[in-house]
Amino acid sequence: MIKVGIIGASGYAGAEILRLLQTHPEAEITAISSESFKDQPISDVYPSFAGICDKLLCDKDKVFDNCDVIFASLPHGLSEGIAAKCAEKNITMIDMGADFRLEDEADYTKWYGGTYENKQLHESAVYGLPELFRDKISAAAKNGAVLIANPGCYPTSVALGLSPLLSAGIADVSAKIVIDSKSGTTGAGRGLTQNTHYAECNESFAPYKVAAHRHTPEIEQTLTKAAGKGVKVTFVPHLLPINRGIISTMYVERASDMPLPEIHKLYVEAYKDEQFVRVLPLGKAANLKNVRMSNYCDISLHEDEHTGTIVIVSAIDNMVKGAAGQAIQNMNIIFGLAENTGLNFVPPAF
Amino acid sequence: MIKVGIIGASGYAGAEILRLLQTHPEAEITAISSESFKDQPISDVYPSFAGICDKLLCDKDKVFDNCDVIFASLPHGLSEGIAAKCAEKNITMIDMGADFRLEDEADYTKWYGGTYENKQLHESAVYGLPELFRDKISAAAKNGAVLIANPGCYPTSVALGLSPLLSAGIADVSAKIVIDSKSGTTGAGRGLTQNTHYAECNESFAPYKVAAHRHTPEIEQTLTKAAGKGVKVTFVPHLLPINRGIISTMYVERASDMPLPEIHKLYVEAYKDEQFVRVLPLGKAANLKNVRMSNYCDISLHEDEHTGTIVIVSAIDNMVKGAAGQAIQNMNIIFGLAENTGLNFVPPAF
Amino acid sequence: MIKVGIIGASGYAGAEILRLLQTHPEAEITAISSESFKDQPISDVYPSFAGICDKLLCDKDKVFDNCDVIFASLPHGLSEGIAAKCAEKNITMIDMGADFRLEDEADYTKWYGGTYENKQLHESAVYGLPELFRDKISAAAKNGAVLIANPGCYPTSVALGLSPLLSAGIADVSAKIVIDSKSGTTGAGRGLTQNTHYAECNESFAPYKVAAHRHTPEIEQTLTKAAGKGVKVTFVPHLLPINRGIISTMYVERASDMPLPEIHKLYVEAYKDEQFVRVLPLGKAANLKNVRMSNYCDISLHEDEHTGTIVIVSAIDNMVKGAAGQAIQNMNIIFGLAENTGLNFVPPAF
Amino acid sequence: MIKVGIIGASGYAGAEILRLLQTHPEAEITAISSESFKDQPISDVYPSFAGICDKLLCDKDKVFDNCDVIFASLPHGLSEGIAAKCAEKNITMIDMGADFRLEDEADYTKWYGGTYENKQLHESAVYGLPELFRDKISAAAKNGAVLIANPGCYPTSVALGLSPLLSAGIADVSAKIVIDSKSGTTGAGRGLTQNTHYAECNESFAPYKVAAHRHTPEIEQTLTKAAGKGVKVTFVPHLLPINRGIISTMYVERASDMPLPEIHKLYVEAYKDEQFVRVLPLGKAANLKNVRMSNYCDISLHEDEHTGTIVIVSAIDNMVKGAAGQAIQNMNIIFGLAENTGLNFVPPAF
Repeated sequence: MIKVGIIGASGYAGAEILRLLQTHPEAEITAISSESFKDQPISDVYPSFAGICDKLLCDKDKVFDNCDVIFASLPHGLSEGIAAKCAEKNITMIDMGADFRLEDEADYTKWYGGTYENKQLHESAVYGLPELFRDKISAAAKNGAVLIANPGCYPTSVALGLSPLLSAGIADVSAKIVIDSKSGTTGAGRGLTQNTHYAECNESFAPYKVAAHRHTPEIEQTLTKAAGKGVKVTFVPHLLPINRGIISTMYVERASDMPLPEIHKLYVEAYKDEQFVRVLPLGKAANLKNVRMSNYCDISLHEDEHTGTIVIVSAIDNMVKGAAGQAIQNMNIIFGLAENTGLNFVPPAF
Repeated sequence: MIKVGIIGASGYAGAEILRLLQTHPEAEITAISSESFKDQPISDVYPSFAGICDKLLCDKDKVFDNCDVIFASLPHGLSEGIAAKCAEKNITMIDMGADFRLEDEADYTKWYGGTYENKQLHESAVYGLPELFRDKISAAAKNGAVLIANPGCYPTSVALGLSPLLSAGIADVSAKIVIDSKSGTTGAGRGLTQNTHYAECNESFAPYKVAAHRHTPEIEQTLTKAAGKGVKVTFVPHLLPINRGIISTMYVERASDMPLPEIHKLYVEAYKDEQFVRVLPLGKAANLKNVRMSNYCDISLHEDEHTGTIVIVSAIDNMVKGAAGQAIQNMNIIFGLAENTGLNFVPPAF
Repeated sequence: MIKVGIIGASGYAGAEILRLLQTHPEAEITAISSESFKDQPISDVYPSFAGICDKLLCDKDKVFDNCDVIFASLPHGLSEGIAAKCAEKNITMIDMGADFRLEDEADYTKWYGGTYENKQLHESAVYGLPELFRDKISAAAKNGAVLIANPGCYPTSVALGLSPLLSAGIADVSAKIVIDSKSGTTGAGRGLTQNTHYAECNESFAPYKVAAHRHTPEIEQTLTKAAGKGVKVTFVPHLLPINRGIISTMYVERASDMPLPEIHKLYVEAYKDEQFVRVLPLGKAANLKNVRMSNYCDISLHEDEHTGTIVIVSAIDNMVKGAAGQAIQNMNIIFGLAENTGLNFVPPAF
Repeated sequence: MIKVGIIGASGYAGAEILRLLQTHPEAEITAISSESFKDQPISDVYPSFAGICDKLLCDKDKVFDNCDVIFASLPHGLSEGIAAKCAEKNITMIDMGADFRLEDEADYTKWYGGTYENKQLHESAVYGLPELFRDKISAAAKNGAVLIANPGCYPTSVALGLSPLLSAGIADVSAKIVIDSKSGTTGAGRGLTQNTHYAECNESFAPYKVAAHRHTPEIEQTLTKAAGKGVKVTFVPHLLPINRGIISTMYVERASDMPLPEIHKLYVEAYKDEQFVRVLPLGKAANLKNVRMSNYCDISLHEDEHTGTIVIVSAIDNMVKGAAGQAIQNMNIIFGLAENTGLNFVPPAF
């Protein structure tokens, strides 16, 4: 059994990892921590856990005592210290935050406001998007404990949706790619805000941080790797009055006149061995409801016949494939388990 | 592996059984049927199943060919024929409908409008509420194939909430018990109606079939058994603008002055070995969100200090403990499996 | 034009009064105050007001300068001081809070924790439920400025639903009346709580303050007047995941065998001159969606044929008939206007 | 008083016109028709109208008898006949459907499948978007009865959002404009579909008719007029799980390096005399909730600083400014009333 600790287990991402691991056959939770609810059972914070997991939330320092892997779900800027301690104790760390996602420190400083103190840690970190970087994750695991930067929710939905197109050179990356994303409110976390106050969020819909969201450099970093050259995107997220799910609608100009059915075949081929990516038949559109509560990413391909613009739509559950599920997928790879171990959640249609 | 057939798999109850069984370690689906979508893959009806279960929906006659158990989810009045055929072929049948729930044929005729053609079948049927009638279910299984009347969703929530109180003689059953229930819209099924049209159901709330719902005799039948004497209830269901879940708020006059903490102990004792019933600590109230997507029933106990009225609140997911989950729980008992096999779904807090 | 001041205009009740008065032909807003947002335009707090009302929120002391009527929407315990100042300046005050609703100071002390400092003010206050106490409101207005205790939202829904039955002596008030109410989240106000955090409120449903809600004594006070003898209720409110509306489902034992159609006639007669009460035809059930955004109260009557229990269902918009609309209705009466002036909002069906 | 008839009053658009006109001071409803509910009171179809408007739905032929203006809300292809009869009887017709919106018959044939039988009628029709074509509407009214093509909901949101930019030549229309729109479910109308079945629509989100929606040619027609040269758009609508509202997020490449604050001034200037268009301050984003239940269109302007892309967001209530409210605005212009007569609905913030 893999011994698992969760730092920041009272937040949404931490609690979701805890929830998903309850039925993981090869993992056992050894410690969970929380600043705000220290010494309380997690089932006081989330009564849904009552009788299932009533473990006490401890101080984060205690989590290191008896773990093979630590999932850290903290505000940005706090992960470096955790990572250093994990490295010292040879504990694999899967960081749910942004601290290790950006390769270019300047990007980090611009968007998050801090600097990289321990540059070696940052160099050792692996960006944990298994469908694109599985080999790196596996390779890193051969050298002992791994430091995983678990991808952001929006970047996951975008990278899976666009990578095959960019890798194949079909997109005209001199034109900007437009990414219009919509996320459920769990993406905003457990913290109370007027925007997520029920009476003001319900029956509302709006964009936020228009073309100024911190996930932009992370998105461009991955897309640039896929394209093999610089990719720029205009990224606008919106807040959906639902709990879970991200739909990204992505508009790409063509650098190739490959017919849509050919592009579709290329996607089917690219993901044919992937258990968590479903390329929909042409003519269907991805829908949040078909991936909710699961680790799937559904992708649909479309074309505007009168402009030639390619439209790619991807759907994930932001808390699962966009956070906790993907983190566990990374853990499975690192510990040599089948990648879907404990992750075969079937999305409810209703 | 238990070979499972589902008759009526395109309806919500049938589809939910199919969904839950995807991760059941001891069951394999051999056939699924549907009148409306015959010869189509179930994943055409519910794209959430794509790549997970793409089995074709067949004619119901074919389901009998290779099954140990059949779940039948049909409009009332159609189950007798299925049951007869199951009996003939020694197949266990778990009937999701109302046809075998009522012991008194007159009740059935009054509320559903038909008669019992094959009375022997009705006598052999076992009411499948495991927490109350587990012994009968097990006993029946010793004699070969079993015919289970899977309880209604409202009756399940009420019976689990009130049985300990009635069994202990604390309720004054000469006074009427008031049951005010609220159900999510999946309880109304997949069929289209103006009441469940999104723009008219959303931001709405209303009672329906006030004091005239067909589940009333089923509720009274079980409560009467628990009390050991005739119990009458006034039952009013309401339609909640959410997908899943039933809350029943139940008002009971006292026949005993046992203090609430004693009554609470009695509930804790009654359910101490039950894996799917959680009696909440005094001072907490049951909430739908803590049982959604799971087989749990949460029960909270309250007292109106100035009138003495006892208020019991129970919460279930109508599609799981109120339908598909309970049906699988019955299957597990009948086939000698641990009762929670394949049913350890952890409710998501958000 | 009636000069109107609103103290506490940034809260939901205050903001709703402000909204409704924008189209009132005989009222003009002279001042609005807020502690939290002093010196900011109300349209900064609620951008929906942009270009419609951009008035600055001032200190509450300034509201008294130029007003005929003040609507005060403050946390309980703060209204006495406002009322004293209004009395001194001969300004009519319509208090949205609980401070002047309860005639029995002991009830107030028990449920709200304070005492009545200025007893004369409390004696002069009129409970502003026009359909039941219109004459008192009018009479008070003849003597100059009036102090109105605007009723609570739940008590409004209950009083309108039960008064004709109790006045006619049809209810057996020796039995307890069960009141099962469900309210949208605006009833909980603008303040942030975990319970009203979107991701935790959405798709949830639960009772709260079971048989221990502060509106209980207010409900019993009005029902006792209607019945002419002591009435006790068991009152359980629930939080509905919608914005607006209260449904109260009320269960009453009979003291009379008057047939339901006769009782229905009696209701129709009781409310025949009321513009804001609609008694539904027998066979229909009141639904929140038909009164949302309007000052209507819909009432439906039902009977449990097998127990004799009478079930009354009433529906209001908690922010309009349950708060701001009723307050304006009171203002209209006091200032001699047609009662529906500025209140002819037509509920949207979708 | 203007005598008003509504053909197709039981559909959502027709019923909304009826609702809004209840408080219009200069209009009186003389007849309402419906095929499906002929001879029933409208309050049977929508109980929200009970006691407010209980008028019987008649045959559409009777609507012509006593009207100054007819609002026709019918499936496409049926409006020509109505229009001919209106022309004959000198009745102004405001057509809620698509039949008279497209100037190029080839577009109509391609997207709607019919032809223009009476070309003269089509030539006489005026596209009723008052903020852009007020003069044409007024001018037409000088010659007697007018035939108005009331704009589609999506095209309204797009035209108001983009016209100032295109008119000023700031957009590079050789690049395609991307329009990502999201609409509440009332836009899909009253007809029942699986997609709008509550349990399947709730907590879901998806695009539909990706780059293939019939509103595309209507959008391009208006934008081309604004730009003075051909404009092509890629338009993708999505279904939002809310009742009302459209947000269009529009991505435009620059043909000019005018700084955003200058562009903002240009918008403020363009709409300075408009009562129903609110240009938000820079830094704010348009939100559906601020325009719901009102005739407002809110517009916010943004810029992606690292790509230069301009992002315009517009928000309307699809049933009001996107349908019924705009239709009444057209009526007001035609009959010489102040344009906001009966349309001063204040959006509720919650």
